[in-house]
This record gives sequence, C-alpha cells and structure tokens, in this order.
Amino acid sequence: MSPMAPEELERQIRAVGAERYHDKHPFHRLLHSGKLDKGQVQAWALNRYCYQATVPRKDAALMSRTTDRELRREWVHRVLDHDGSGEEEGGIERWLVLTDGLGLDRAYVTSIAGALPATRFAVEAYVKFVHERSLVEAIASSLTELFAPSIHRERIAGMLEHYDFIDDKVMAYFRRRLSQATRDADFALDYVKRHATTRELQELCVEAVRFKCHVLWAQLDALHHAYVTPGLIPPGAFRPEQAP
Amino acid sequence: MSPMAPEELERQIRAVGAERYHDKHPFHRLLHSGKLDKGQVQAWALNRYCYQATVPRKDAALMSRTTDRELRREWVHRVLDHDGSGEEEGGIERWLVLTDGLGLDRAYVTSIAGALPATRFAVEAYVKFVHERSLVEAIASSLTELFAPSIHRERIAGMLEHYDFIDDKVMAYFRRRLSQATRDADFALDYVKRHATTRELQELCVEAVRFKCHVLWAQLDALHHAYVTPGLIPPGAFRPEQAP
Repeated sequence: MSPMAPEELERQIRAVGAERYHDKHPFHRLLHSGKLDKGQVQAWALNRYCYQATVPRKDAALMSRTTDRELRREWVHRVLDHDGSGEEEGGIERWLVLTDGLGLDRAYVTSIAGALPATRFAVEAYVKFVHERSLVEAIASSLTELFAPSIHRERIAGMLEHYDFIDDKVMAYFRRRLSQATRDADFALDYVKRHATTRELQELCVEAVRFKCHVLWAQLDALHHAYVTPGLIPPGAFRPEQAP
Repeated sequence: MSPMAPEELERQIRAVGAERYHDKHPFHRLLHSGKLDKGQVQAWALNRYCYQATVPRKDAALMSRTTDRELRREWVHRVLDHDGSGEEEGGIERWLVLTDGLGLDRAYVTSIAGALPATRFAVEAYVKFVHERSLVEAIASSLTELFAPSIHRERIAGMLEHYDFIDDKVMAYFRRRLSQATRDADFALDYVKRHATTRELQELCVEAVRFKCHVLWAQLDALHHAYVTPGLIPPGAFRPEQAP
C-alpha cells in the first residue's frame, strides 16, 4: 500500500477525534451542564490531577528518545508549560488552584492517594507508550490536543454558569490551555505529516491517536462508574462525604 | 551498617574524583600541554560531541522518572543549558563552534558517523544507567561535575597557550560550563546527601560516581588507543588525514 497524502492522514486523525474524543463521554456532559454535585466535581478534579502531573514525565520521556536537538528545543516548552519555570507557575500549579477552590486538601491531591486505580493505570500506560513506541507515534499520541480547545471553551462557560463553587480564578488552567494546546498541536500535526512517510507508520499514528483517546476515555469511565452510576467507589479511593 | 554522616558521603564521593576523574588520563595531559597535533584534537572534539549531544537525553530521562515537580523544575535547566532556548544557543551549539573552528564539517560531526564505537557505547551506557537505576543514583552519576571546573580552567589556559588553531571564541563552551557546572553540582550533591538515607543507597551513590568516571575514562582510552598509541583507528572512524 502506498502512503496516504498528508492531508488524508490529517483527515483520518481528525476523524478519530470526531468519533471518540472524550468530549463525547457522558461524564463530561454531566460536568459541563451542571448536573454533578460538588463531591463529583471534586472526584473529577483530583483524578484529573493525576493526569496533569504525569504529562511532563511523558514529555521528558519523549525528549530523552530523540537525538534531534530542534525537536527537543520545541518539545521542552510543554514541560515548562506544565511544570512552570521561574516566576511562571505552570499548569500543574494552576490545576491545584482549581482543586484548592473545590476545597480539597493540597497534600491529599498531590499524594494521588485518593485517585482511582484505573486513572493511575491509564496515565502510566500513556508514559509507557511514549517510552516504547516509535518517536513519530509518540508525537502522534499528543494529537488529542487538536480537539482540546473546543472542550475547554465548553467547560469554562458551562462550569462558570452552572456551579456556584466555580469562579473565574479556578478556571485559569483551561484559559491558558486554549492558546498552548493550539500551538503545540499545530507543531505535532505538522511533524507527524512530515515524518510518517510509509503507510504502515501513518496507520500506527492514527492508532496512536485512538490509543490516547482510550487513555482519556478510560479515566472518565472509571469516574462515572465510581461516582455516578452505579456509584461503586473502590476501596481506598476518594469518598466525597469524607472530603476535608 | 548504619548510614554514614552526609559529610562522610561527600568525602567519599570527592575521593572518587581524586582517584579516577578523567583529568588524570594521559590523553588529557597531552591535550592540555600542547602535545597533540590538530588531527588528534579534531578526533577528541568530534568524539566528545557524541557525549555532549547525549547529555540532554540523559537529563530528560531523569526528568521522566520523577514525580517531584520541584526536582524537574530544577533539572530542566540542564536541558536548556545544553540544547539552548530561544535566543540562547546552548552548549551543544557552542561545542559545534569548537568543531567548526577545528575545521571539521558540521554535518559530519553531528552525524556522529566518525565517532569511535567505544564512545557511543559509553554514552549510551550513561543514558541507560539513568533510565534504570534509582533516582538518587541517577542524580549521583552527575556528580563528576564537582570536579569539572578545575579541568575546564586547565583546558582553557592550556589549549589557548599551546595551539595556534585554538582561539578564545572556540573555547566559549568551557567558559560557560565553569559557572553552570558549579551550580548544578551543588544542587545534585545536596540532593544526594539528603536522599541517600541508608548505607546501601549511599554506597550505590558512591558507585554511581565511579561508574560515571568510567564513562568518561573509557572515552579517552578509546581516543588514546585510536589516535595516540598504538594509533589503531577502527574501521569507519574519523581519520585525520582525510579531514575536510
């Protein structure tokens, strides 16, 4: 099979998002339309912290794999965006502003002791994927960022409108990601289109986006099962009624 | 066995440097005292490029392993120092100014095609060590930087004095490392003294410094064997008489 045109590869990648990005998950619909109570929003925020805190490790793993200095110079922005640098607090700190605002204890959140096991497994699977797959697949797995700005806009508007415990200050993380995610996704998409030069690699890149959608979706499935229906919270995981 | 006092650990780490840091290698004595010809200095610079280019991968690997955001925020400076960031060119680029100044073709240098196999094996062993050992051992393996400023000072003075093909501009790499290496080594030493809390870990940390000294020493052994005595250049490696 001959390679696809780069535009066809982009179309297939975007089609994965249209079909299975986590904006379609029922938990997000509940979250954005004000149907969750504060305990459920807390559960979401503290589990999602796990993902946020893991992203720079994933990005550093990617950097450790490439001898291309220009690629590392570009990619390190992601690490700096999340971890912060000097005066700039970074995305993880902005996420903790959200969990603070929800009344969660910061040491409890950062310990990830209350996170669902399924959350931890999903985020570690992401790090492992980036460690082990080809570099272009590792880069392709970041491409869910193509779909992030619209969910962030929906989330900011929806959560501000519907929850009296959410204000503009705690939504800073999502505002910042509107511009960061767009820049990052443009770079990564261009890289994948230029470097996935065989049909096999192109298909692996589409599969990498599908994999990453699974990583995101599985986290919401676990939240939904534990905190919505049937509400079966696993042993040791965060229980809203015991929130500080 | 109870843990050593942190001061004793530091003493043992410094003793490793006193015994086996690569400032003691005959090749460096030849290099710094003007006893090498231009082809031998070229061979040194293009092999050492291999090491320089690998260091940010090693540092990114270390970052990918830690959930400690403060540690990543500190460690990322090493990546930025080597790869550069924005207008700042970075240490690898400064190294290429040196190889340019020695009349080596930049594409040939960065391809590492002419580097000795033993150089490549040594630097990859360093990356692997940082991937696989405990975090505190990985950090300890950077502590040869404690011993670097004196060799850099000796090198700057010696090479400027003895070689007419070396000028101040091409020595910029070493001048910059005088301050960077000191800051980095202070942080890493403090980290190791605080986190190697059992006798076993402490001994592993001393061993990590020894390992790193091997990584550096083995590179000079290979250079000495290929380009000094007996002058047996392996097939495919750089041959001075064919330098561009």
